[in-house]
Amino acid sequence: MKYLSPQYEDVKPLLTAVDCIIFGVQGTELKLLVFKREIDPFAGCLSLLGRFVKVDEGINEAAGRILFELTGLENIYMEQLHCFGRVDRDPGGRVVAIGYWSLIRVDQNHMEFNVRSHETMWISIDRISELVLDHSEMAELAISNLREKARFKPIGFELLPEEFTLGQLLTVYQAIFDHPIDDRNFRKRMLKSELLIPLPKKDKSTSKKGSFLYKFNQETYHRLSKEGYNFGF
Amino acid sequence: MKYLSPQYEDVKPLLTAVDCIIFGVQGTELKLLVFKREIDPFAGCLSLLGRFVKVDEGINEAAGRILFELTGLENIYMEQLHCFGRVDRDPGGRVVAIGYWSLIRVDQNHMEFNVRSHETMWISIDRISELVLDHSEMAELAISNLREKARFKPIGFELLPEEFTLGQLLTVYQAIFDHPIDDRNFRKRMLKSELLIPLPKKDKSTSKKGSFLYKFNQETYHRLSKEGYNFGF
Repeated sequence: MKYLSPQYEDVKPLLTAVDCIIFGVQGTELKLLVFKREIDPFAGCLSLLGRFVKVDEGINEAAGRILFELTGLENIYMEQLHCFGRVDRDPGGRVVAIGYWSLIRVDQNHMEFNVRSHETMWISIDRISELVLDHSEMAELAISNLREKARFKPIGFELLPEEFTLGQLLTVYQAIFDHPIDDRNFRKRMLKSELLIPLPKKDKSTSKKGSFLYKFNQETYHRLSKEGYNFGF
Repeated sequence: MKYLSPQYEDVKPLLTAVDCIIFGVQGTELKLLVFKREIDPFAGCLSLLGRFVKVDEGINEAAGRILFELTGLENIYMEQLHCFGRVDRDPGGRVVAIGYWSLIRVDQNHMEFNVRSHETMWISIDRISELVLDHSEMAELAISNLREKARFKPIGFELLPEEFTLGQLLTVYQAIFDHPIDDRNFRKRMLKSELLIPLPKKDKSTSKKGSFLYKFNQETYHRLSKEGYNFGF
């Protein structure tokens, strides 16, 4: 690609990177996917999954490519978080980083991978302060966005398999907010929200009696994603 | 500034720009501040207020500098909107643009300026499609963010003078949402929200009887900015 406009010629370009903040719920805990940084400065330190944007790809495509290169995952829910551009954020050069955050469903078998020779790993949220550069700040902002969204939009469903129990749904929300949520109130609210479609079957993996399975109502989901809904968390 | 890391040397840098999406309420209407683009491609077309980020300034500082250079305005409420980075978004070169949106209060005498020889002007929201490059998309996203925020957070207050009447507050919200809002319901909700502190004086500029003035409760404002509140719009 050539720079066409002579008016743009004197402008000094900057490096542009994408960093991915990828969340998943493992057991009862919200986790973050990181890897050991491969290049200097700070090679070997814990880092978000990131790479530079190429001159011939859009930033959204770059985010998808980077996620795929580092994890083998494709077609994952990704949302742009924020652009981070302090002059001194990276001692290796003047890099503007665009953060993208993702939620990975627990049923996609995505919680236990270590692909393409990259040492990716899931870490607890309380280890975020160990991340390199301004990656802690990025991850903190992503968590606060995730929590804010989860209060008003039915985003927790992105972390669940297609069919789930109310117990699993509660676990996801407790993991996101990192505090216990009153079980009875939660069930009442969720059932009242019209977000859930009861299925005529039970999950018996955790008890003999079993728990009813639900899937979520796409129509209500899209309406509430747009309109918002106060879940009272 | 030197690029220090040899690992970064092969990376092709991109141009980085900031574009400002600046809203104000003029009369009963939400307006957008634009100017006539000075450089090719598309010199003379309507454009958001934008410039390139310099290598030695952070992106937030760049946003403040650009707003100041083009309008003379300083210390304005600005929030990063989104980063726009399609490969072909600017035929002049590979430019990644970071959008920042702003709300300007009507009492700051900012609605009628034309400074520093730039032909800035306020246009109606329904003229957004005339904007150059992907600036229409940026402005549309900013409006939808503004509306979403205004539904859950007391952001309309950013557009008002320190002391205001309930009528002025209603006007701001009607301008943001571009539809009439039931007056009685609005007053009831607002008074119930504890966002307003009644003042022992009236604004008599529009009627002999006058309308009570209010200021907003900073404490409630900060709490609701954080927690959110469904205004029912």
